[in-house]
Amino acid sequence: MKVLVVNAGSSSVKFTMYRMAREQVMAKGLVERIGLKEPRLIYKRHDGLEFEEPAAVLDHEDALKLICDKLVDPEVGVLSDLAEVQAIGHRVVHGAEKFSGSVLIKDDVKRAIRMCTGLAPLHNPANLGGIEACERVFPEVPNVAVFDTAFHQTMPSYSYLYAVPYELYEEYGIRKYGFHGTSHHFVGEATATFLDRPFDEIKLITCHLGNGCSIAAINKGRVLDTSMGLTPLSGLVMGTRCGDIDPGVILYLLRKGMGVDEIDNLLNKKSGLLGVGNFGSGDMRDTMNAMEQGNPGAETAVNMFVHRLVFYIGGYYSALRGAEAVVFTGGIGENNIPIRARVISRLGALGCFIDEAENQVMGKPAVVSTPESKLKAVVMPTDEELMIARETIGVLDRAD
Amino acid sequence: MKVLVVNAGSSSVKFTMYRMAREQVMAKGLVERIGLKEPRLIYKRHDGLEFEEPAAVLDHEDALKLICDKLVDPEVGVLSDLAEVQAIGHRVVHGAEKFSGSVLIKDDVKRAIRMCTGLAPLHNPANLGGIEACERVFPEVPNVAVFDTAFHQTMPSYSYLYAVPYELYEEYGIRKYGFHGTSHHFVGEATATFLDRPFDEIKLITCHLGNGCSIAAINKGRVLDTSMGLTPLSGLVMGTRCGDIDPGVILYLLRKGMGVDEIDNLLNKKSGLLGVGNFGSGDMRDTMNAMEQGNPGAETAVNMFVHRLVFYIGGYYSALRGAEAVVFTGGIGENNIPIRARVISRLGALGCFIDEAENQVMGKPAVVSTPESKLKAVVMPTDEELMIARETIGVLDRAD
Repeated sequence: MKVLVVNAGSSSVKFTMYRMAREQVMAKGLVERIGLKEPRLIYKRHDGLEFEEPAAVLDHEDALKLICDKLVDPEVGVLSDLAEVQAIGHRVVHGAEKFSGSVLIKDDVKRAIRMCTGLAPLHNPANLGGIEACERVFPEVPNVAVFDTAFHQTMPSYSYLYAVPYELYEEYGIRKYGFHGTSHHFVGEATATFLDRPFDEIKLITCHLGNGCSIAAINKGRVLDTSMGLTPLSGLVMGTRCGDIDPGVILYLLRKGMGVDEIDNLLNKKSGLLGVGNFGSGDMRDTMNAMEQGNPGAETAVNMFVHRLVFYIGGYYSALRGAEAVVFTGGIGENNIPIRARVISRLGALGCFIDEAENQVMGKPAVVSTPESKLKAVVMPTDEELMIARETIGVLDRAD
Repeated sequence: MKVLVVNAGSSSVKFTMYRMAREQVMAKGLVERIGLKEPRLIYKRHDGLEFEEPAAVLDHEDALKLICDKLVDPEVGVLSDLAEVQAIGHRVVHGAEKFSGSVLIKDDVKRAIRMCTGLAPLHNPANLGGIEACERVFPEVPNVAVFDTAFHQTMPSYSYLYAVPYELYEEYGIRKYGFHGTSHHFVGEATATFLDRPFDEIKLITCHLGNGCSIAAINKGRVLDTSMGLTPLSGLVMGTRCGDIDPGVILYLLRKGMGVDEIDNLLNKKSGLLGVGNFGSGDMRDTMNAMEQGNPGAETAVNMFVHRLVFYIGGYYSALRGAEAVVFTGGIGENNIPIRARVISRLGALGCFIDEAENQVMGKPAVVSTPESKLKAVVMPTDEELMIARETIGVLDRAD
């Protein structure tokens, strides 16, 4: 079985072509800057072949056709015929309450995804664009939607509701949805397997730390709580997003004369490490470097990132009534050894003690706490694309 | 030494008259509905004498004069002459970064309190009104300001800054200030004394649970973090305030056409237990009753209150790298046995186990966890007025 995974953003189409028998990546890459100046294709084949080239594409359908051309290209391709693609899995950012799992895409599903657009105004239309391009290019192939929010639909109402008037939930759908669900689900399952425990018996705290950061408390296969909410703005300190702030701050800024779009841009694009560090980058590696060179803003940014994360880990540990592992994933979680060290070395009160030697790992599954630790610290690389491919197969198997 | 404590709100003046030698309350009470229809005086004397009567007052100064008349009244009074009042302590809500402790009030202090008005538009002008009324009625008596925010000024910058652009802090003073500081300070010291430990050596988590709710992590006499922020809106679920929500919720409501004042009112007055319970009360006792009668909104509200609090306790336990006690104070914390039971019985992972028999306590200091508990649960009644009186004496002693 060969599955194509598509992640269509507002100006990009990412793809991964899988041979599912052994979950092998045959080829992957993306077309970026679609609709902007100088669009480009980046293409990588399983055997190390890799290239970039200008891409003469105007829209998502053009981009998909270009990707297809490469996949069957006699020189760089991995398929002899597009008919080998048996299923396509799509990342869809927001499924609201309509989708608590992955689904085969039919007209009603597309309508429902369109109805969730108000909750993800940039992402859902782009995701739909990718789906419709695939329907035109592969009219015979089943498409499956895998939602970033679906895994979090297992949350109880006392977690997913905000303490605001109930009619805001009923009328506007205002509640915590959570994001990065596919990643939390993937690393949750992978960690259970790695620790040789059934996913539906283990309690885990999964930290997805990339450019966006979120954390989830997973109680025996179900999400008890997560840090992102109605939007991906709340919770942990991120590269350019503020995470948790007093809602009074926004009212204060509005009264100072700032507009909604200005505040939105401020909290999404100019905050987080970038805003606190105040030296021009929201990248954690740059922030660490700046801190080492004595930049006080960078030091505060790092301390704030660590403090907020340690707080959330303890909060979820408590809410779960204990847990077996805290899991680090995403670019920072998998690769940033000193940040992991700072976080884990503060978890002693929860019975988690760092193993400095084991912690010298990047991008590979590892237990990085000492054997005596009651709460294990685990590094687990995430793979949202593989999760989407697995979900796609799962949906088609159930449909048979 | 006799000290009058004054807490002037927008339409009320509360007072407590202390004989400080044994920290005895001589009389206390309030004038309420000042400037509204049918203002009233409520007066209580140490010996149990207690009455209410209509109060013909137009403003704070009238109210203070009425209170003074009663204090020296031959029949109901406790002083033979107003000259016995040797000092007056004032509650002031917001001291911003200007005040990290209590101060003797001079003109520059009043100017500074006025400059903090933007951060507490309802409270600081009322507090100033009380101060100026006292200056006119007691021209010879020293006035001391005790700030709700002062104790929290010990927070480190990685706690008090938000992850927003640093210039918002520099230009607008946007940061976490915290509130209920006088209460957290009082119960922190009282708990240290009760446990026979020096306040500057003990780690505590203090939960002030009243109509407003906040929690503080106290590390050896200094605040490590607290749940209220720039305003008293963030953090725990409260009677009518939302506590933490995704900042994206406010942007969403603004785009739905709601105005700033409408959202402010919604989040401050119609949210919390009132908004979730959705049956007409934000009082925890009513909510518990409604839950027992099967109201599903009330049940969610109680579960949310408990879940959020358990999360914060674990978060601060982790951030403090362990603590010796979690302290319950305020109307709910001191008196609501079943809420305390629900919270404490979820803290097993932190080594805190409820002693059901000991927990049958209301309004009295008590350890309500089992002797084996690594983290103690303590009930400790707060007394902000007494703290203000003590601070007043302390400031005058240092001024001598």
